[in-house]
Amino acid sequence: MKTAIVGGVAGGMSAATRLRRLDEAAEIVVFERGPYVSYANCGLPYYVGGVIRDRGSLLLQTPESLAARFRLDVRTGHEAVSIDPAGKTITVVDLGSGDVSVETYDELILAVGASARAATGDSGIPTHTLRTVDDVDAIDALVGTVADHPSALVVGGGFIGLEAVENLVRRGIHTTLIQRGPQILSPLDPEMTSPIETELRRHGVDVRTSVTIERIEDGDVLLSDGTGVRPSFIIDASGVVPNVDLARTAGLRLGSTGGIAVDGRNRTSDPHIYAVGDGIEKIDAISGEPSLVTMAGLANRHGRSVADVIVGRDERNTPALGTAIVKIFDVVAAKTGWRERQLVAAGRAHRVIHTHPASHATYYPGAESMSIKLLVEPVTDAILGAQIVGGEGVDKRIDIIAVAIAGGITASGLARLELAYAPQFGSAKDPVNQLGYVADNLRAGTTSSIQWHELDDALRDGATLIDVRTPAEHAAGAIPGAINISVDDLRERLRELPDGPLIVHCQVGQRGHTAARILSQHGRDVRNLDGGYRTWAAGVTARTPVAVRV
Amino acid sequence: MKTAIVGGVAGGMSAATRLRRLDEAAEIVVFERGPYVSYANCGLPYYVGGVIRDRGSLLLQTPESLAARFRLDVRTGHEAVSIDPAGKTITVVDLGSGDVSVETYDELILAVGASARAATGDSGIPTHTLRTVDDVDAIDALVGTVADHPSALVVGGGFIGLEAVENLVRRGIHTTLIQRGPQILSPLDPEMTSPIETELRRHGVDVRTSVTIERIEDGDVLLSDGTGVRPSFIIDASGVVPNVDLARTAGLRLGSTGGIAVDGRNRTSDPHIYAVGDGIEKIDAISGEPSLVTMAGLANRHGRSVADVIVGRDERNTPALGTAIVKIFDVVAAKTGWRERQLVAAGRAHRVIHTHPASHATYYPGAESMSIKLLVEPVTDAILGAQIVGGEGVDKRIDIIAVAIAGGITASGLARLELAYAPQFGSAKDPVNQLGYVADNLRAGTTSSIQWHELDDALRDGATLIDVRTPAEHAAGAIPGAINISVDDLRERLRELPDGPLIVHCQVGQRGHTAARILSQHGRDVRNLDGGYRTWAAGVTARTPVAVRV
Repeated sequence: MKTAIVGGVAGGMSAATRLRRLDEAAEIVVFERGPYVSYANCGLPYYVGGVIRDRGSLLLQTPESLAARFRLDVRTGHEAVSIDPAGKTITVVDLGSGDVSVETYDELILAVGASARAATGDSGIPTHTLRTVDDVDAIDALVGTVADHPSALVVGGGFIGLEAVENLVRRGIHTTLIQRGPQILSPLDPEMTSPIETELRRHGVDVRTSVTIERIEDGDVLLSDGTGVRPSFIIDASGVVPNVDLARTAGLRLGSTGGIAVDGRNRTSDPHIYAVGDGIEKIDAISGEPSLVTMAGLANRHGRSVADVIVGRDERNTPALGTAIVKIFDVVAAKTGWRERQLVAAGRAHRVIHTHPASHATYYPGAESMSIKLLVEPVTDAILGAQIVGGEGVDKRIDIIAVAIAGGITASGLARLELAYAPQFGSAKDPVNQLGYVADNLRAGTTSSIQWHELDDALRDGATLIDVRTPAEHAAGAIPGAINISVDDLRERLRELPDGPLIVHCQVGQRGHTAARILSQHGRDVRNLDGGYRTWAAGVTARTPVAVRV
Repeated sequence: MKTAIVGGVAGGMSAATRLRRLDEAAEIVVFERGPYVSYANCGLPYYVGGVIRDRGSLLLQTPESLAARFRLDVRTGHEAVSIDPAGKTITVVDLGSGDVSVETYDELILAVGASARAATGDSGIPTHTLRTVDDVDAIDALVGTVADHPSALVVGGGFIGLEAVENLVRRGIHTTLIQRGPQILSPLDPEMTSPIETELRRHGVDVRTSVTIERIEDGDVLLSDGTGVRPSFIIDASGVVPNVDLARTAGLRLGSTGGIAVDGRNRTSDPHIYAVGDGIEKIDAISGEPSLVTMAGLANRHGRSVADVIVGRDERNTPALGTAIVKIFDVVAAKTGWRERQLVAAGRAHRVIHTHPASHATYYPGAESMSIKLLVEPVTDAILGAQIVGGEGVDKRIDIIAVAIAGGITASGLARLELAYAPQFGSAKDPVNQLGYVADNLRAGTTSSIQWHELDDALRDGATLIDVRTPAEHAAGAIPGAINISVDDLRERLRELPDGPLIVHCQVGQRGHTAARILSQHGRDVRNLDGGYRTWAAGVTARTPVAVRV
């Protein structure tokens, strides 16, 4: 029984080592095009920034270590160029010698990954992607050789682009970030990403959105908004595309997303060929539809499970949520499931909840504020997605919500989760519990909310906006047109309120909820501005994008 | 409609404020025996230690602030001394004036909490518990007045006792901790708590286990092991008992645990009297039996839900897992569900898994090691409990497991959780995913393990122990009797192994798993020492208790 594996990083190597542990007698050959196997892709930007100083720590395994422990035949510098599914062979080129060989297999695993989409072409300016050890070696060399005041242009403000920006700034390089769309970090909604743009600018990054490269001339990069930059080098982080050439030419079925199509056991359209990792399409947990989700965790897990399938175990994949996180200087941003824009585009009914809780009990030093957005299916109360931006504790809360989705816990059910509480770690009512309470109030009709982007229309239609914060808070920054009546004074001043629909708001939404309860019990038609002044300000900043004081 | 609430801290005040938000017209009276309402109990030890400097920050609400926002009639210094359920009245004493009044109610909520169990009696040495603002004011005053070299005796090494110890040491007070049982922090198993005892000793704490106070004479505390201490003062943290006098004299049913018995809607045996918080017994999520679980989170949540019940909503409690966490200097310890000792005592079948993963990707600076113990029901693969000791990321992992239990995710299912991965926060295979892989291997019979405390018997019965670590690791500290054959050499040296059952071990269990797979496929009867040398050393240390080098 001989298994050939094409690709020796996350998914491929997980498959190879698991297969050996399950089958001591199996013949296992791994072909890796590059010079390294099993390296730490997600650490590469931090090596550029000098956070990771030991280059060797990026190389988790070598062909030698894998041979010693797992009796794997790992061949780096070997590219698989074609597959003959009928004959069960692959043709492999030794990139060093140029020798071509034909290898047989009983089972074949494609772990071919994805490649950086090159958005710039040949420009005359040194340009690199950020996917491999070779990439970072080249960038590192570039940084060392360019002039006294090096500058960089990063194309693409996704996860990798932002990590690249942070690490270039760490190296003292003036960095411009351009993003095709109107906001950076498009897996999140715009009112959630505006704090990240603020953080980037605070560190001197020149962030330009809704901009593409028009052309590059004599070292000048001319942008679609008429401006230009003259960078020492370019980091192209404009996204990745699955490597499907090998699969396509072998006649394997590709999916509607462009990735290699596989079934729940990672089997391609050929029964003896499996595929895992960034090259395949997964089933999206929210839609049930195929989707390209390129996460190291999924690649590793599928790699392992495909080994189980090959030895005859009944192992199946679960759909992908796409949980992800990134740290940019002092700001952490994370997401799981769908964002609002996706739900709107798909026409799916949804409720939106914004909160701004503290990372731990505020009476204990060091608590940090975070902003959470939860998306909920109205009929089922199911959680459709979440986004969190803040500092301490963001990673914990996104994981809790991701696990809750996996366990079928409803949005209201978040209130009942028993989380570990000591004042260093959370609150007796944890931010996640609080989300559950808000969701429950919306579900039960105890409260009614309005979103930041719906406010203008509502006011135009005659609603009155009441700021229930203190006069001092109101004076420090207010929504145009709001009347200020503190929640504690509201009961006495009911008669001052004009007829017609009311909207209340406070700083984060909590006092607004109390105010809305008071008013609705006095017979008023009232909605609470979801997330309060802070969400509104973040949304307006994202839209304008001139910072509103928070 | 008049609701009276006895007790104005976590559960009582959550009930009062929620009830107001649901019913603007309700008459709500809160009687609190002490001088403060809604204070931060869990912050009190840190005020003693000077971590929390502003005493005012402990007082989250005042009667005045609650009257202004929620129109609550809050009467501090008022003790409810009896209930007449038939007449629906309570008798209340104004502790300031001594005036006695009879108050009517339509619905009554008992949020009477628990009191510190006084283990020392009147001793002539200043002795305080650590439950109220008055307690910490008194301790703070004591610390300021005692001699130049103050010393303290803390009785009880539970959560509160450990927090007291840490904060007394912070104040420069030499502290002795005595614990009745053989280990501190008894909600965890002994091999998990030995790192905490080591941490306490590292900070100069005199930890004495299996010891009680014999008697106190002329300022000397004589202990049951024949030793003595002469403390400037004593902190009595020997546990809490539910305050049930009021309920008992009113004829309300008490449960088998000694707490007030309530149904799933927090209703006592009287249909118009509810109870919440530390005074009631909850339903244990693992056993389905009544249990005393005294957690601030549950008190708050039940307080809120009882208000829903009173206004006629269909709100029910979920059983309690008892998730808890404590930080002692640089060590964090957390648990959820049951510990092994409970399962053994209850005769419940269980599997044990110990792992020692890194808090985040080891190639990124700052990763810390943690130790995890997972308890699994063999037939159903259900998670019965977990314990984690370490530093960074302990809180996140215990919460993830608690949510997984709540969502009915099996132990093997932990492998499939999609957690947020960037190198600062976790690994592509997160510690929780890894637990799932180990659980799956045990479930599927891919591997077989043996526990640290079973090793002696197995060796006595003729098994051979093989240390598959490197010779250098073996030389740095080994289990007596182990033969050292590195996992990478194992295939070549199979013939050196004696007949009969084999046990393999490495440092944490991972290489042991690979070794066990190699040997079992060569027909050998082999088990992997669960958690490797580290768990064995922690267990042996807990038992002896002389530290074994790890």
